[in-house]
Amino acid sequence: MTTAAVPAALSAADGRRGRSYAEVEKLLAAGNFQGKLTRDDLPTPALLLDLDLFESNVAKMATYVKSHGRDFRPHGKTHKCPEIAKRLVRAGARGNCAAKISEAEVFARAGLSGLLITTAVVGRHKIERAVRLASLRPDTIFCVDNAQNVRDLNDAARAAKLKMNVAIDLLVSGRTGIATGAPAVALAELITSQPGLKLAGLQSYAGQASHTVGFENRKRVSREAMTPAVETRREMERKGIACPLLTGGSTGTYNIDTEIEGITELQPGSFMFMDVDYNIIGGREGEKYTDFGNALTVYTTVVSKPADNVAIVDGGFKAFATDRRFGPEPKKIAGATYAFAGDEHGRLTLRETASLQVGDQVEMIVPHCDPTVNLYDRMFCLRGEKVEAVWRISARGMSQ
Amino acid sequence: MTTAAVPAALSAADGRRGRSYAEVEKLLAAGNFQGKLTRDDLPTPALLLDLDLFESNVAKMATYVKSHGRDFRPHGKTHKCPEIAKRLVRAGARGNCAAKISEAEVFARAGLSGLLITTAVVGRHKIERAVRLASLRPDTIFCVDNAQNVRDLNDAARAAKLKMNVAIDLLVSGRTGIATGAPAVALAELITSQPGLKLAGLQSYAGQASHTVGFENRKRVSREAMTPAVETRREMERKGIACPLLTGGSTGTYNIDTEIEGITELQPGSFMFMDVDYNIIGGREGEKYTDFGNALTVYTTVVSKPADNVAIVDGGFKAFATDRRFGPEPKKIAGATYAFAGDEHGRLTLRETASLQVGDQVEMIVPHCDPTVNLYDRMFCLRGEKVEAVWRISARGMSQ
Repeated sequence: MTTAAVPAALSAADGRRGRSYAEVEKLLAAGNFQGKLTRDDLPTPALLLDLDLFESNVAKMATYVKSHGRDFRPHGKTHKCPEIAKRLVRAGARGNCAAKISEAEVFARAGLSGLLITTAVVGRHKIERAVRLASLRPDTIFCVDNAQNVRDLNDAARAAKLKMNVAIDLLVSGRTGIATGAPAVALAELITSQPGLKLAGLQSYAGQASHTVGFENRKRVSREAMTPAVETRREMERKGIACPLLTGGSTGTYNIDTEIEGITELQPGSFMFMDVDYNIIGGREGEKYTDFGNALTVYTTVVSKPADNVAIVDGGFKAFATDRRFGPEPKKIAGATYAFAGDEHGRLTLRETASLQVGDQVEMIVPHCDPTVNLYDRMFCLRGEKVEAVWRISARGMSQ
Repeated sequence: MTTAAVPAALSAADGRRGRSYAEVEKLLAAGNFQGKLTRDDLPTPALLLDLDLFESNVAKMATYVKSHGRDFRPHGKTHKCPEIAKRLVRAGARGNCAAKISEAEVFARAGLSGLLITTAVVGRHKIERAVRLASLRPDTIFCVDNAQNVRDLNDAARAAKLKMNVAIDLLVSGRTGIATGAPAVALAELITSQPGLKLAGLQSYAGQASHTVGFENRKRVSREAMTPAVETRREMERKGIACPLLTGGSTGTYNIDTEIEGITELQPGSFMFMDVDYNIIGGREGEKYTDFGNALTVYTTVVSKPADNVAIVDGGFKAFATDRRFGPEPKKIAGATYAFAGDEHGRLTLRETASLQVGDQVEMIVPHCDPTVNLYDRMFCLRGEKVEAVWRISARGMSQ
């Protein structure tokens, strides 16, 4: 507790950032903040995107996938952000995946095409929305894994005088999908018999592979999951059923699945942002997975110091995804570890007791990127310390 | 797989709900849906509030707290919804708590007063916002636990020619706050010496007590935490420092803390909604905690049946809070258990294999209410099966 006439926290803040919050608000609302705002002007907790790292992640993945002769349709459930979807297309993506119809509608309204909805569109109302989307963006692909759903989609497409593209979702991860082999081929035959539908191909997403630790181990798990999908595709083609698409793959398996003959398209998501979850899976060479940089962070403020070696920050369950067994990782605070301390707070245990004071700011690598992004309305895009852009996460909350 | 000419799923849906999705959208946008929409018209996953249960929860808690001679200031971080904040005030609440300044600003803009911000407002920009809020709602109380922060608030209040109400946050849970006893009394003396500040009293929130399983055990933990707070209040009064407020307590301890002499106000939140987390803590009489009803649920749809005894629903990490070790609890599906299956899906393991088909809807009690509400923009308020109102969760995402 200092007793200086000029409060230390205020004078430090004054040195770092001269603007009032009213000015910051006005600049953000008007959108003309370029070069005028830095990260220290942002209200914490704030979602930050390092543009240099983001751009290099996107360029690296796009180049890798294309140079291996595969299509690139990154998953929009990671970013939920039309501005990013557009940048991915400019980088060579064939389009963007969307997890649900409501997410795809946001992308379509923003002018995007090339959409693939990776979850089956089930029920009369969602099928109505699918038809509406297909009439707006005729190249949209809808995943199916159920004969009744195929018939319902066909009836709706015919009533609207449309032809809808469908891909068969294969059961390769114990989640959604129809069994590979004969059941999938039978569903393909049903689809080709429906005048309102066009079979685009297959989807094979092996979630269990993406986070398997150790490259060789991950390669084995992914190959085991993908091989029956590739064989199903061959079986369909032997029967004369065209199957131009076999989409799958993830940030963890991009350099595994691009070596499997028969996979035509990759749909990774996390590579653009990265997170603690992917940092620890291990790379092709070496124990650390360093293929992509940690572009996504959350900026927090120390709001309390209940003990010399404890700093409480203003980000808890509502600022970070909590679906993993670990929390976020503080950057640049050597030896500090984070533990969740409720909805609104996190507890940093410090190795050097004087390393953080009330009012200091701490940047954290997010534990799991997708559900973290889904907690924020906007991301602040930085070039170095400067705020270059603010991107709306317009599909946040669109889980329907 | 049925082969009926009229698809079974469609005809079942037609029987239940005749409206098109375009009509539903139009009714929701216009707000004139009363009596016209039922829960089956809503796009899943949807956050549902059972109004009968909600109203009875609010009435029960308000009556209990008031009849025990305490003030009632429920926590707005649970609902983040101005409409609910207003109803709580009409039910007798003195006001609403807010976790952060941005949450309080939403309530203030909606016309609410009686706000108490339970986290310290730290840093030049947040203090600027606090001054703005205090000038709009002069009865707002700001929590402090740090001498420098007290001086900064005083300087800002004086510059704005205001007097701001502050409460000392006590360290009773290992999270935020200043130590009870002499350190807290010294901070109280500092506050009373600052011309821009008025000491409202003390905050003592014992998070560790609220979820302690077993009533007697919980009573012991809460009393251990609250006793030093009550003693600090007495010490202050012995020194002639007025301390009209001692606020704390939770849904788990409302009938414990109202029996502790010296606690003036309760700030529970979860009681209005309830969740799996509170269902399992045990009641005063009996093993189950049934004091309040499960008013808050999420409505989901089965989108895939990869095996006879497995139903995949369309709600995962983005539809439910994931900060507890357990997921949501399906209602009315005997013996079914839920496990998270990624961002977008959950896996129900069924005891009766035929109990759920693709397209069926499943209502779930949420694992933890506060961070679940924070995932949704609106809650659909039901009276029986009918949608009576849609309430905006306007402070969703306001963690700043």
